[in-house]
Amino acid sequence: MTIYEITPPGANRPVPTIGVFDSGFGGLTVLRALIEKIPQAKFAFLGDTARLPYGSKSRRTIARYAAQSAQFLVRNQGADFLVIACNTASALALDAIQDSVPVPVLGVIEPGAAAARAASQTGDVLVIATDATVQSHAYTAACRTHGLRALEKACPLLVPLIEEGWTNQTVTAQVLKIYLRELLDDAASKGMKPDTLVLGCTHYPLVRPLLEHVLLDITGGAGGIRVIDSAEAAAQAAVRHFGARFALPIPEADAPPPIVRCFATDSVEKFERLGSGFLNRPTGKVELVDLGG
Amino acid sequence: MTIYEITPPGANRPVPTIGVFDSGFGGLTVLRALIEKIPQAKFAFLGDTARLPYGSKSRRTIARYAAQSAQFLVRNQGADFLVIACNTASALALDAIQDSVPVPVLGVIEPGAAAARAASQTGDVLVIATDATVQSHAYTAACRTHGLRALEKACPLLVPLIEEGWTNQTVTAQVLKIYLRELLDDAASKGMKPDTLVLGCTHYPLVRPLLEHVLLDITGGAGGIRVIDSAEAAAQAAVRHFGARFALPIPEADAPPPIVRCFATDSVEKFERLGSGFLNRPTGKVELVDLGG
Repeated sequence: MTIYEITPPGANRPVPTIGVFDSGFGGLTVLRALIEKIPQAKFAFLGDTARLPYGSKSRRTIARYAAQSAQFLVRNQGADFLVIACNTASALALDAIQDSVPVPVLGVIEPGAAAARAASQTGDVLVIATDATVQSHAYTAACRTHGLRALEKACPLLVPLIEEGWTNQTVTAQVLKIYLRELLDDAASKGMKPDTLVLGCTHYPLVRPLLEHVLLDITGGAGGIRVIDSAEAAAQAAVRHFGARFALPIPEADAPPPIVRCFATDSVEKFERLGSGFLNRPTGKVELVDLGG
Repeated sequence: MTIYEITPPGANRPVPTIGVFDSGFGGLTVLRALIEKIPQAKFAFLGDTARLPYGSKSRRTIARYAAQSAQFLVRNQGADFLVIACNTASALALDAIQDSVPVPVLGVIEPGAAAARAASQTGDVLVIATDATVQSHAYTAACRTHGLRALEKACPLLVPLIEEGWTNQTVTAQVLKIYLRELLDDAASKGMKPDTLVLGCTHYPLVRPLLEHVLLDITGGAGGIRVIDSAEAAAQAAVRHFGARFALPIPEADAPPPIVRCFATDSVEKFERLGSGFLNRPTGKVELVDLGG
């Protein structure tokens, strides 16, 4: 006679792995928010640093690179769920990524637009992002489905300023002032009354304090504009989607730190050096992978 | 009886083609200087825009990308002579490129160092460049062979500022001031008396007027520092090397404009839009090529 053990759903299943993908390491701001919210999951992060930045490349090229990266996380690292922690790849290649892997894929654009919808009273929203994200008008489209009017602006200097470590420099404040003033003037000329600003790039949370200061300075404190972090919004959306699909053990008070593996296609030293600022803890040893090309 | 015609050497040979390679389109400043100096040659320019910037990538990756690009210019475009109009590729991959093609290859580092030798009285030279060029210390090594002492500084914000078109903005002047003051302070602390500054990136000639202004401002006009453009220096060296190898027709007063074909691995629209500023004339139709990867 064989004895069958009845196990509750998910009890003996391995802990699911969340794959997080970015063109660089800015997406570590999303990973950081995910680890805080789902510490019982395992994580595999891939930064396609050999081919960054995606922000200045074409849709065709970005789709090819992003699909290869997604396949690495699913096939090689066993990811059960993917978060595309890159606004450019989410804007230009979410469909291509979804077609290339057999697991659920979540981008950052839709959660960012949904968070803007929850925050905005006037229905007028500003978005700052990289060139490619803005040119795709993915935020405008996503905001429109939520009944919002969006105005987007490319801010190509912010990523290099942040990677230089100048997150609190006068010159960075001046660059932010130039970009934000142009954006607010443009909004005013279109008769918009924006009350929400979406950070449409996973690097930007690192200058959020400075940006909020500059914004207050420009607007003279009037007509307060609320800042939405698309990294934070994506992590919250991931918790909902992920929680609905996967049974997870209840976190214990004395649980060991979550299992996080970081991979990069190039420059692992730079990743380790700068990545801890984004992740808010050491990245650990970053493993080099070759996706070809 | 067969009659043999005696032809002077090179008379019926086709006009030689000079291949010019860069990771982006900054190298068009080298192409521009070459066209001015050798208008009788044909030119093929390749910008590996799908994989730029090289400046933040590893030696291994840069060598692989640069060799593929060089092979395209020689095998597909019939280049008889290659100019590597990219400081990063010259610094990190000149040997790999020379090994990958059967034609002479000239980089920008050695001509830049030779021009600094000709300009410097004190023997102390400053170099500004991208991260990867500086980390390679290729300029320090090349300057040493000329009996010069070099001090290098990475200026990663200059390329994005130039690509933003902010070549004459206050904020660009401030970034230059921060970089140059740090460099001059560092030189002073080492007991150096620099009188020459090498622009070790082919983008930098576009901010040369602003940089010279800032430099004069910082030094109070004292101890004049001469600026060397490595793009110009490389074009002069190419004229010498090329002229010694290839017979060229004497340019005629009413000669048609030189034949120049431009190729890019991505974003040909951006190349056409921004490239004319570097080339100082329209780039013409930029052709898209796929090098794989």
